[in-house]
Amino acid sequence: MTGIEKSVLFRVANPRSIVFFGGSNNIGAMGTNILMSLLALGFEGSVFPVHPKEKIVQGLTAYTSVLDLPAVPDLAVIVLPTALVNPTLKQCGQKGIRNAVVVSGGFKEVGGQGPELERQMVEICRDHGITLVGPNCLGVANPHHKLNTTFLPFEGKPGFIGLASQSGSFLTQMFNYMARHGIGFSTAFSVGNSACIDLVDCLRYLEACPHTKVITLYIEGLARGREFAEAARRISRSKPIVALYVGGSAAGRKAGSSHTGAMAGPDRLYDGIFRQAGIIRAASLTELFDFAWVLGSQPAPQGAGVLIQTHSGGPGAVAADAVGRAGLELPELSAATLEALQPFIPHTGSVANPVDLTFTKNHLDFFEAIPRVLLRDENTAMLMVYFLTPLPLIHRALSQMGVSADQIEAEAEKVAAEQARAFAGVYRQAGKPVVGYSWRGIEERFYQVLMENGVPLFADPQRAARALAALVRYHREKDGPQAVKPF
Amino acid sequence: MTGIEKSVLFRVANPRSIVFFGGSNNIGAMGTNILMSLLALGFEGSVFPVHPKEKIVQGLTAYTSVLDLPAVPDLAVIVLPTALVNPTLKQCGQKGIRNAVVVSGGFKEVGGQGPELERQMVEICRDHGITLVGPNCLGVANPHHKLNTTFLPFEGKPGFIGLASQSGSFLTQMFNYMARHGIGFSTAFSVGNSACIDLVDCLRYLEACPHTKVITLYIEGLARGREFAEAARRISRSKPIVALYVGGSAAGRKAGSSHTGAMAGPDRLYDGIFRQAGIIRAASLTELFDFAWVLGSQPAPQGAGVLIQTHSGGPGAVAADAVGRAGLELPELSAATLEALQPFIPHTGSVANPVDLTFTKNHLDFFEAIPRVLLRDENTAMLMVYFLTPLPLIHRALSQMGVSADQIEAEAEKVAAEQARAFAGVYRQAGKPVVGYSWRGIEERFYQVLMENGVPLFADPQRAARALAALVRYHREKDGPQAVKPF
Repeated sequence: MTGIEKSVLFRVANPRSIVFFGGSNNIGAMGTNILMSLLALGFEGSVFPVHPKEKIVQGLTAYTSVLDLPAVPDLAVIVLPTALVNPTLKQCGQKGIRNAVVVSGGFKEVGGQGPELERQMVEICRDHGITLVGPNCLGVANPHHKLNTTFLPFEGKPGFIGLASQSGSFLTQMFNYMARHGIGFSTAFSVGNSACIDLVDCLRYLEACPHTKVITLYIEGLARGREFAEAARRISRSKPIVALYVGGSAAGRKAGSSHTGAMAGPDRLYDGIFRQAGIIRAASLTELFDFAWVLGSQPAPQGAGVLIQTHSGGPGAVAADAVGRAGLELPELSAATLEALQPFIPHTGSVANPVDLTFTKNHLDFFEAIPRVLLRDENTAMLMVYFLTPLPLIHRALSQMGVSADQIEAEAEKVAAEQARAFAGVYRQAGKPVVGYSWRGIEERFYQVLMENGVPLFADPQRAARALAALVRYHREKDGPQAVKPF
Repeated sequence: MTGIEKSVLFRVANPRSIVFFGGSNNIGAMGTNILMSLLALGFEGSVFPVHPKEKIVQGLTAYTSVLDLPAVPDLAVIVLPTALVNPTLKQCGQKGIRNAVVVSGGFKEVGGQGPELERQMVEICRDHGITLVGPNCLGVANPHHKLNTTFLPFEGKPGFIGLASQSGSFLTQMFNYMARHGIGFSTAFSVGNSACIDLVDCLRYLEACPHTKVITLYIEGLARGREFAEAARRISRSKPIVALYVGGSAAGRKAGSSHTGAMAGPDRLYDGIFRQAGIIRAASLTELFDFAWVLGSQPAPQGAGVLIQTHSGGPGAVAADAVGRAGLELPELSAATLEALQPFIPHTGSVANPVDLTFTKNHLDFFEAIPRVLLRDENTAMLMVYFLTPLPLIHRALSQMGVSADQIEAEAEKVAAEQARAFAGVYRQAGKPVVGYSWRGIEERFYQVLMENGVPLFADPQRAARALAALVRYHREKDGPQAVKPF
């Protein structure tokens, strides 16, 4: 633990106990849903619900006031009507609670009394030394600590992607997306209106967090531009930072502003800040997580050359096109590689790059012998593989071999899993970046096994190529052009 | 049938009987796999396998020579070693067969004897009046006719997307992709080396094909540029054409050329051809089918204004940003719409565009009452909806209602399907383009029902916005700016 305990956010993300306001036995209430998410993940500390009337809330003993609690919890989570938030926060301060997540909205992001209420909130925090995340946020998900203060139950496994987001949706509504892709959050913060804690504080926490290998940011507008750029510049030398900024277009700016009241600026301005700070900009939410997946899982490439392995010309050609458009190179294969490949390539196959194997005789070669040869190629810094699990063909083959109809599905899954494990073994030994692409559904066993073994998979070669380009760019900027050949 | 019988490709795509060369009982052979695909789809005409030794091939009576067949089939499918192709084709001609698909490779796309063999092939076709698709292709999939001469078994249902492709993979390897998205091919052609039949012929067939509502093209290079542009210009007035061209980058050009021997040119040249011909260019294979989905299923928009419906700020903001960047507009809501929305919007929600409902009290309103109001808005030409099926929340609610654990999954699916059907009903009545986006998996029942009812769904709002922009562009160019307000 590299000083993470010293972070102002340490007990927000790693509380030992929580007082919860706004949870009840009414499942229609937002607070109830958040409390249920927290309990469903199996939070191991004490949870104290506070409720004016209920004696038992979601199976837990409830208290009528925070002042009645038998202990001083590390963190308060507040999901109450706007008018009740500040009085409650003040009571928390009186009780000695030093960390709070305010989920409730109705502050700076709306008109009328909102901004004044938020000013008063900041004052209460100052008076009582409270570290506050929000308001108008979903707080924190730290699956490594079994903490989830968001609306939806956590899915999947703890992971290596840190997130600081001006939208709570991009924590809670991404659990399912990430679980399906075999990735997960290390710790994710929803900063909401950033009344006290903002993206800069979260960046510093994620810098110190040992689980975080890559940091993602969702930005609608920055208030502390200089501090942000300085922190990011330092952090990006040790951990890659990827950002999605939506305030650059007039449409995005307007939508973002009504969302969290953030101040946005033109694209150009943010491009400049990001460039100076070593932040890689993503063009969409999909790309944000694509980039993070590759940056957080793949080793530093020793160049910008991508080798494409395929058994179909079209998928190879679109991948080559995507690699070229992403600014990467398609190196020629070395003489040694060409010779080593000879036994595997039919006369209709191509030994250029893409390596197009068309119809390989031994199907397993595609997953083991061939990538092993390709990853040894000295001109090849990275490998991009077109994965078509021919599940229907495996079904056919098994049926022809006399496997009974009710066994075929299970047997086919076994075969597919073996192929994926064979490839994963080659990948682990190689120490070079590898990504896959396919137009089939990643829920198939073959892809699940590949992802479990750390191979990022994309539904389009364009996404794979752009993620590899982000990887090259990151290491080129961090380690200088001598480490990665310029492209 | 608008003259489709007159098309030179009519009996290639709609044969009444087929002679098949290269199928056997050896499941490792490519020909066997193609024959199995053909039989698996339930082709209703006669299939005559020709095999030198086997008497029965895949359960069918086999013949030692095409000359022995008891009838003259409409189509020959040839999957033989290169050297056997031309002699076989000649025998087909002698038998009186007038249509052929040559899957075998080893012709113009390779060096040595290849080009000369292909020249001889063309001569045989000319001598015998044979319409030939290929060589080095996968032929045709016409699921409306239960025809599939490709490697993989057909999945899903017949659809409205026509395809002419210089890669066979983008027929056969897309069956699964399209089936998962609830779309399908009307008829798809793999032209391979285009020795006789090329993209232009396919375009003309798809123009006449009554099942085809939109035409997609995968292009590595054009030989008959002028004929292509002329045909496309005429056809695009009645059917949208979307093209993916990969020869524009140096990398794509090189890969494509070794694939089918096609002649590629720079991006600029193709951009010019496409613009003149009214063809919409896609930037990736994913986008090719995204555009086709929306162009083939959605009505003409009466403007460029997109209304975004969401219940989360972040997903709304990224969608607004994507709409802006795609060149579309985000209109203000009319006074009548604002008034009609009043009962549904909580005080934390936003009645700007995006319409952000945050936490709606009656969850079903999001799927029925609210989109009904929004689709009546006079400034709204198109609706883009963020769909988060809160499956986990439905599970929670059912559990709280006392539904037993083993019933919950089925009950939750029922609830989700009802919500999707409610939305689909509103969509059908509105007569305006509607698309959805979500980061959850489309295999969930909610999304499946939406797609079955004709609502295109995208895994990212950027893809949804770009597809709507393609729709607007198509109708603006076809019907003139008076039909669709310029943007």
